[in-house]
Amino acid sequence: MTITELQSGLDREVSGREMYALMAELYPICRSITGNGFRATLANLERQIPLIQHEVPTGTQVFDWTVPREWNIRDAYIKNARGERVVDFQRHNLHVLNYSVPVSRRVSLEELKQHLFTLPEHPDWIPYRTSYYREQWGFCVTARQLAQLTEPEYEVCIDSSLEPGHLTYGELYLPGETPDEVLISCHACHPSLCNDNLSGVVVATGLAKNLARIACRYSYRFLFIPGTIGSITWLSRNEEKVASIRHGLVLACVGDPGKFHYKRSRQGMAEIDRAAVHVLQHSGLEFAVADFDPYGYDERQYCSPAFDLAVGCLSRTPHGQFPEYHTSADNLELVRPDALGESLARCVAIVALLENNRTYCNLQPRCEPQLGKRGLYRAIGGVQDAQQTEKAMLWVLNLSDGKHSLLDIAERSGLSFDVIHTAAAALVEHELLKDVLEVTSSAGR
Amino acid sequence: MTITELQSGLDREVSGREMYALMAELYPICRSITGNGFRATLANLERQIPLIQHEVPTGTQVFDWTVPREWNIRDAYIKNARGERVVDFQRHNLHVLNYSVPVSRRVSLEELKQHLFTLPEHPDWIPYRTSYYREQWGFCVTARQLAQLTEPEYEVCIDSSLEPGHLTYGELYLPGETPDEVLISCHACHPSLCNDNLSGVVVATGLAKNLARIACRYSYRFLFIPGTIGSITWLSRNEEKVASIRHGLVLACVGDPGKFHYKRSRQGMAEIDRAAVHVLQHSGLEFAVADFDPYGYDERQYCSPAFDLAVGCLSRTPHGQFPEYHTSADNLELVRPDALGESLARCVAIVALLENNRTYCNLQPRCEPQLGKRGLYRAIGGVQDAQQTEKAMLWVLNLSDGKHSLLDIAERSGLSFDVIHTAAAALVEHELLKDVLEVTSSAGR
Amino acid sequence: MTITELQSGLDREVSGREMYALMAELYPICRSITGNGFRATLANLERQIPLIQHEVPTGTQVFDWTVPREWNIRDAYIKNARGERVVDFQRHNLHVLNYSVPVSRRVSLEELKQHLFTLPEHPDWIPYRTSYYREQWGFCVTARQLAQLTEPEYEVCIDSSLEPGHLTYGELYLPGETPDEVLISCHACHPSLCNDNLSGVVVATGLAKNLARIACRYSYRFLFIPGTIGSITWLSRNEEKVASIRHGLVLACVGDPGKFHYKRSRQGMAEIDRAAVHVLQHSGLEFAVADFDPYGYDERQYCSPAFDLAVGCLSRTPHGQFPEYHTSADNLELVRPDALGESLARCVAIVALLENNRTYCNLQPRCEPQLGKRGLYRAIGGVQDAQQTEKAMLWVLNLSDGKHSLLDIAERSGLSFDVIHTAAAALVEHELLKDVLEVTSSAGR
Repeated sequence: MTITELQSGLDREVSGREMYALMAELYPICRSITGNGFRATLANLERQIPLIQHEVPTGTQVFDWTVPREWNIRDAYIKNARGERVVDFQRHNLHVLNYSVPVSRRVSLEELKQHLFTLPEHPDWIPYRTSYYREQWGFCVTARQLAQLTEPEYEVCIDSSLEPGHLTYGELYLPGETPDEVLISCHACHPSLCNDNLSGVVVATGLAKNLARIACRYSYRFLFIPGTIGSITWLSRNEEKVASIRHGLVLACVGDPGKFHYKRSRQGMAEIDRAAVHVLQHSGLEFAVADFDPYGYDERQYCSPAFDLAVGCLSRTPHGQFPEYHTSADNLELVRPDALGESLARCVAIVALLENNRTYCNLQPRCEPQLGKRGLYRAIGGVQDAQQTEKAMLWVLNLSDGKHSLLDIAERSGLSFDVIHTAAAALVEHELLKDVLEVTSSAGR
Repeated sequence: MTITELQSGLDREVSGREMYALMAELYPICRSITGNGFRATLANLERQIPLIQHEVPTGTQVFDWTVPREWNIRDAYIKNARGERVVDFQRHNLHVLNYSVPVSRRVSLEELKQHLFTLPEHPDWIPYRTSYYREQWGFCVTARQLAQLTEPEYEVCIDSSLEPGHLTYGELYLPGETPDEVLISCHACHPSLCNDNLSGVVVATGLAKNLARIACRYSYRFLFIPGTIGSITWLSRNEEKVASIRHGLVLACVGDPGKFHYKRSRQGMAEIDRAAVHVLQHSGLEFAVADFDPYGYDERQYCSPAFDLAVGCLSRTPHGQFPEYHTSADNLELVRPDALGESLARCVAIVALLENNRTYCNLQPRCEPQLGKRGLYRAIGGVQDAQQTEKAMLWVLNLSDGKHSLLDIAERSGLSFDVIHTAAAALVEHELLKDVLEVTSSAGR
Repeated sequence: MTITELQSGLDREVSGREMYALMAELYPICRSITGNGFRATLANLERQIPLIQHEVPTGTQVFDWTVPREWNIRDAYIKNARGERVVDFQRHNLHVLNYSVPVSRRVSLEELKQHLFTLPEHPDWIPYRTSYYREQWGFCVTARQLAQLTEPEYEVCIDSSLEPGHLTYGELYLPGETPDEVLISCHACHPSLCNDNLSGVVVATGLAKNLARIACRYSYRFLFIPGTIGSITWLSRNEEKVASIRHGLVLACVGDPGKFHYKRSRQGMAEIDRAAVHVLQHSGLEFAVADFDPYGYDERQYCSPAFDLAVGCLSRTPHGQFPEYHTSADNLELVRPDALGESLARCVAIVALLENNRTYCNLQPRCEPQLGKRGLYRAIGGVQDAQQTEKAMLWVLNLSDGKHSLLDIAERSGLSFDVIHTAAAALVEHELLKDVLEVTSSAGR
């Protein structure tokens, strides 16, 4: 099966439901940037795709950073005088400040309040807060819960550990025809948050499952990593591999029903940027494109100046722009199966464009070749509306001078890449077109 | 006489009437891509301009194409049972499918209908259809004629021949001061169609007549050719001349009263593109500019990748965008003398711009020269509104560093090329400016 | 004190009042392009800044021009039959056509009228007219004065002299850390005109006073010159210094309350152009930017093709665009202290940008450095709105690859230069950033 066949055969509905089901399994796990929750998540993914778990010891220097101690948590609560859990980690893992150090004692209400985080504007939502690099303990509670804390003293318990261990990440490498790589990266370090974190994980998994079934020109590398420290760790341990990365996408917030957003790489007009924008432009749906900004997900690291990789970020509603972001409302209701399916379809279309984006030479470059005698042209002249495929053939022939890729031609003609690619395939079949690399290599013989 | 004098002395009204009269003579001839109709058309033009007829034998290989057999037609009709011509080539030559093979027999109405072309949306118009490269016979009829065909059988006769012969085209070369050429090309292969075909023919003829009267810097080559196969044939037989073509225009659909349209060359920003757009911008009339598109007239061939010539296309309403296109309604009523006159004026203005677009060196490049002492500046200072010509002189002096052409200066200043050129001429006269080529050549001595 | 401290400490109100007071002193002096009025003006400025007066003899050839004879005037009037001065130079020095040759005789009203200039559309305003390069005499009068001239004969007297002497200009050079220069130029050749002429003079003086108090990277050259002939003379006598001029500003019409206008240099996107536009963009005020045009003030000469210096022009309402321009209404009422203060602040901001606009190398270019451990980042993660300074640090780190200046980074990020510069200073302090010149020079050791 070719990527083009994969693309046209993709069933978004079925794929969307599968990805949603996977998300539902992953949702309850309490993840963090290290620890058993991350491992459990990867173990679950291993049932779908043959990824490899990497463990990097605490204390490992990764560029300017150090792999932190490993965090694990078993239980946490705030109990009132009657011994009732008024805040309970077992009910929602967002209740604990992520990376909280252990604590177990009675505290006055006044002291407790200094360790509580809440969202006054959404009284029923629990905020998501972390403290990876400063030791402290804390709870995240709804505003209603906070209002009900009226007793003078409470018992607090966080049964966590912060100890030497490892940072864990998952990696899947699908070798292709060439060692040139496409990088697909997503963060998997957030606890029960769906759009921010799990949506990227399940769409990346869905894409990997599909690509594993076909032969590709590019090699594909999928990374399931803790945000920031994960990409820094991977880059630090794989500097020699970076030169092979031709294109890349960070996937995040791809499960909500909002319109698509593509954030360009630092290079701005790299092939991945043009491919993603082209796919969105021809999707028939509303979308937005943002310039690179060194604030966001792991594209920050991939696009740091010494690497400057062509890695953009595909989202639906971007981080921080939906009210449920980093709250308990980013749950299984916010994310929808059909949105996941559509996101996967967009990813497949972008990959198909990259795979098929070749540069050709017109083998009859002096005037137009006679399409009619090859059955490539309408038989009766004088009809006003030429067919789109004929136009596409004329565009491909006109611009295939060895300097314009099919994407260049699609952009200049205003036609979709798929139409241009179909036209090019017909012309190749009729020996009117040849890949510039083959022309060059045969000329060299 | 200089081109500038020619331009300012051009009488559009007289020229328009002359071109219209020529069109009226050419209108009845049944032209095709080969044959005696084409020859008769050229013979008529020869009374206006000293063009040369070229004959290329059937079967000649021209790049990917082959010169077809020559087509000629004497008569054609459909007769009813009473022997009446219900469709008659003698009444309108569009009634025959152009390049129809001969036929002479009785056919059932059912069979006949498979050979009829009509335009249901314009019941009184005859469509124009061709079948150059597939042997068939057919008639083009109005929808009303079709409705009246009710008899079970008709006699059809097409007294045509499709035999080895020649492809004919006309060429006029006006040598100039330099061998660098401007190519003016028009198709002359359509039967009784005015805007599409004859308007370009008569405006090109008008332009040639005018340019033949003056001394030009550039050499001018006029081609009167059958569409597509004609330009392919010319290019195939004149590959060594292509390198001399600096600028070119295809003229087509320049006789209707619609606004001007200029379609850029494949290069997009070649001097001809900028010249044509500038002339239209400063014409005071509405106009439109389109990017290159490999669909249209013979610019398709001139702009094929191996040639990539700087050839654009000047039209009023472009092909396919007026309802009368390729129908019997594209007749002497659609085209107007004043529209032809204005089109000729635009062509002359474009040619004048190309002829006068030189690059100069300011001979006093350090600060402004003192214009006042040369009588080039107003005598009393302090008047708020400087004259446009003074501004033009300052622009020319400021940008004439040997790197900016007068067109560059006109574009950057927003002034018209004519104003800039007049200012430059005054500065040359006062020895403040010198053609960069003269500066370079005298420096080389 | 650094330029940054100077900028933040500038008291616009106090400065505005000081500049306005200086203008009030200079206002009554009858200046011209040569003569004692110009010298008296410079003598006054010397009490503020240590400028040097240069004298260039009449007849000196300066490129295409010649230094004219020196003009001085003591008195002038038109007397009626009763011996009353109906037009009196002592009341307003605009009453005399600037550079009038002496005259003293009785003339008929008819003859007199050929020597009178008036402004019918503003009956109470005296126009400003000059005749530097054509010998004539004349008076400028209000339309009301003209209407009252009803006697058949008048006595006219212009007690002026036009004799070999000198052209005078003032120059102040403030040496900086490098010989690279910033040129600040203003014309000081107009008689009692405030916005056009004196506003530039007092703002340039204010800027010079301020810059004289601090150590700068660039050297600064201030020119107080007669318009056109002054810049031509300076350039002619200082050709070897021109190569040191990196950036420049002509200051004119900077005292009225209109919005700021910046006119780009001929180069168009030089650093001074980008700096001026950036400062205006982030001023929070309405402003306009115009492309270069070879019509205006002395930027015409600095931007002539052989010099092509990066010199723009900063104005509030540009010359010719306010009704009072070149009339007696361009007086101490049109110009306002706060407008002068704001203009000075803009100049200081532009200079501060140029001084601080360095290019850095990120010393931790592989991924982001860990800002948190250096106290440069918020302690609690997950807060939605990152601080502007954090964003600025991320932008500086991301783009500081030795190829992007801080202005490049400010432009691309949309943040103000000041915020970007503050972020860069913090990163330099934490040894995360180093000036690219230092990196290069230490690499060379």
